[in-house]
Amino acid sequence: MMGRMGGVVGPDEEAVALDAADPLAGWRDEFFIPDPNIAYLDGNSLGMTPRRTIERVEALMRDEWAGGLIGSWEHWVDLPQRVGDTLAGIIGAAPGEVVVHDSVTVNLYQLVHAALALRPDRRVIAIAAGEFPTDRYVVDSIARSAGCEVRDGFERLDDVAVAVRSLVDYRTAEVEDLVGETARAHAAGALLIWDLSHAAGLLDVDLAGAGAQLAVGCTYKYLNGGPGSPGFSYVAADLIAQIDQPIWGWFSQVDQFAMGPDYVPRPDIGRLLVGTPGIIGLTAARSGIELSAEAGIAAIAAKARAITTYGLSRCDALGLESPSPTDPTRRGGHFSVRHPDAAAITRVLAADHGVVADFREPDLIRLGCSPLTTRFIDVDAGTRAIARLIAS
Amino acid sequence: MMGRMGGVVGPDEEAVALDAADPLAGWRDEFFIPDPNIAYLDGNSLGMTPRRTIERVEALMRDEWAGGLIGSWEHWVDLPQRVGDTLAGIIGAAPGEVVVHDSVTVNLYQLVHAALALRPDRRVIAIAAGEFPTDRYVVDSIARSAGCEVRDGFERLDDVAVAVRSLVDYRTAEVEDLVGETARAHAAGALLIWDLSHAAGLLDVDLAGAGAQLAVGCTYKYLNGGPGSPGFSYVAADLIAQIDQPIWGWFSQVDQFAMGPDYVPRPDIGRLLVGTPGIIGLTAARSGIELSAEAGIAAIAAKARAITTYGLSRCDALGLESPSPTDPTRRGGHFSVRHPDAAAITRVLAADHGVVADFREPDLIRLGCSPLTTRFIDVDAGTRAIARLIAS
Repeated sequence: MMGRMGGVVGPDEEAVALDAADPLAGWRDEFFIPDPNIAYLDGNSLGMTPRRTIERVEALMRDEWAGGLIGSWEHWVDLPQRVGDTLAGIIGAAPGEVVVHDSVTVNLYQLVHAALALRPDRRVIAIAAGEFPTDRYVVDSIARSAGCEVRDGFERLDDVAVAVRSLVDYRTAEVEDLVGETARAHAAGALLIWDLSHAAGLLDVDLAGAGAQLAVGCTYKYLNGGPGSPGFSYVAADLIAQIDQPIWGWFSQVDQFAMGPDYVPRPDIGRLLVGTPGIIGLTAARSGIELSAEAGIAAIAAKARAITTYGLSRCDALGLESPSPTDPTRRGGHFSVRHPDAAAITRVLAADHGVVADFREPDLIRLGCSPLTTRFIDVDAGTRAIARLIAS
Repeated sequence: MMGRMGGVVGPDEEAVALDAADPLAGWRDEFFIPDPNIAYLDGNSLGMTPRRTIERVEALMRDEWAGGLIGSWEHWVDLPQRVGDTLAGIIGAAPGEVVVHDSVTVNLYQLVHAALALRPDRRVIAIAAGEFPTDRYVVDSIARSAGCEVRDGFERLDDVAVAVRSLVDYRTAEVEDLVGETARAHAAGALLIWDLSHAAGLLDVDLAGAGAQLAVGCTYKYLNGGPGSPGFSYVAADLIAQIDQPIWGWFSQVDQFAMGPDYVPRPDIGRLLVGTPGIIGLTAARSGIELSAEAGIAAIAAKARAITTYGLSRCDALGLESPSPTDPTRRGGHFSVRHPDAAAITRVLAADHGVVADFREPDLIRLGCSPLTTRFIDVDAGTRAIARLIAS
């Protein structure tokens, strides 16, 4: 590869100083770094691999699966809830309100259905037309089968059964007003499902403080849970007993191994489980979630603000246009650069410059800053490489 | 532990001779054996761990996730279909007809919904009252939301939209008539979904030969895919384009990364995918599936017949009552012993006799014979220990 950070032009001195002063810098050693010269700015698509995850998954396979065989189900059976309890601590939820299982798409499908059942007199589902595709597709599929209207946006909520919103926009990183929009939805009698995919393990989300009732999210981005690691569902404690989810499976059944004739949902958050949970993937997710919990979400969120602020300052200095919010409290863990050749630039960045970013339609280069693994010098390298490519 | 196979009473000479003559005996070396004195007769609940799976999952984490990061999605993105192609070869399906994803519960939920949509003039779902719980629960949940009748059994099919049937009964191991029942359902205008959970990787299932259109199954039993490894869906090639499944997600969307406004399902079997597939669990499943494919399903099925025939002969000799079919062509990979104290006996077998079996309500001890790992001497040890416990 050419033009990597190790090339003739040294890194920005400010970036070097910021890395030296970064209280989270040491956490990068917890991760497997394939090449220190690569600026990996895509931890918000796929988080890097915690070293301990490789060890823990191997131990699971060797000691628990191979060694303990069927007997290990005794401690696997409630693992989705136990991992959920750990995750709860970094999104402002209480133990018993979060369960880690299936995919975000399935999680959202279940909660939208359950929300509609709680508002039988309303037939509108609200979602932004620019929302992440899988969320829109899920809403469209349910609207079709339930005979609901799908409304673009959230201006009018007084006839909305359920609104689905990402807390962090996957293109611009703009953060919605969790407290204000939750209150506004509830005042209008609507339920609101927050998608925390680009927020969990990054922002100091306080679901309880906001009075949020429902949320989903993924664990393979900032939580470093591994490729396709399970999603999660959150339901506020006082709403759990009312959740009537559509996919009845034996893991959501009370007294599961009695294998009784009639389905009776569990009284707890486990009623959102479906079939047999994938224990290997869940173990990897657990490892990533625990690592974020140990590092501390307040410190993680502070670094997210600092490193994206630095990134936007580099955009300014280098003449790059960014649609990402300038207010750090309204910005997630990435920032985007807008350019008509964004797709080609993103390809060349990875192929020739050791800079891994994401292209997002139609014209965005998305630069993800994962606080436990991304260095300020990575952001410097990424923005400089983009500026050089645009200039050339 | 007391009374293990290494105790004062030696194993049955016939069992020793059968193991010595077993053409599959060498495959046991491919598996991690935690204790050779344990008779593990529960490979039909959780298959043992292939040694290569530990290596392959570690290599996936180290080389592909940690090493390749986001770039590895290039070859992960169609992994559910590629693993499905391998599995297709051992269930009598063609490449492109099988996809490995999510859980059996989700797989079944999707296919029952899709089947109902294909028979809009019929409102009956048929399933046996004694069917495995998660299958019944799924059917009940769909019947409730779709306003369908759930009918117990398959005598009358001329008003049935879709029937759900296990090919192998999870309690007695009785095998249904795949060819005859498929033909009878189709002649009556009904769709039929076969649940192959206790058949895949065990019986020489010929889905194409039977004209079967729809099936689901799991990979953590005889396919040794690991705890909670993903399920699979099968759709006959000529039916795939008509499958309209209810959970629209970005992995079932054609041209997924265009992230377009409208959901358009993929034209192929990938239209059954939902959210981001769990790559770590899928890699473990792939390893187990490939191992079964290498050993050869004909040889596996032959050993299943031989070892359960031996088991039932031991039941006869020891005076144990079994509800399992005596005809080996109508029997799956386990046999059960009926006794009023079955639950207590199963517990003591594991705790004190090194025999791991399953209790199934209300009065069955289920002895699983997984052809690649179970020895005839394990079956001898299991049946003898049961006989001793009953006598004492």
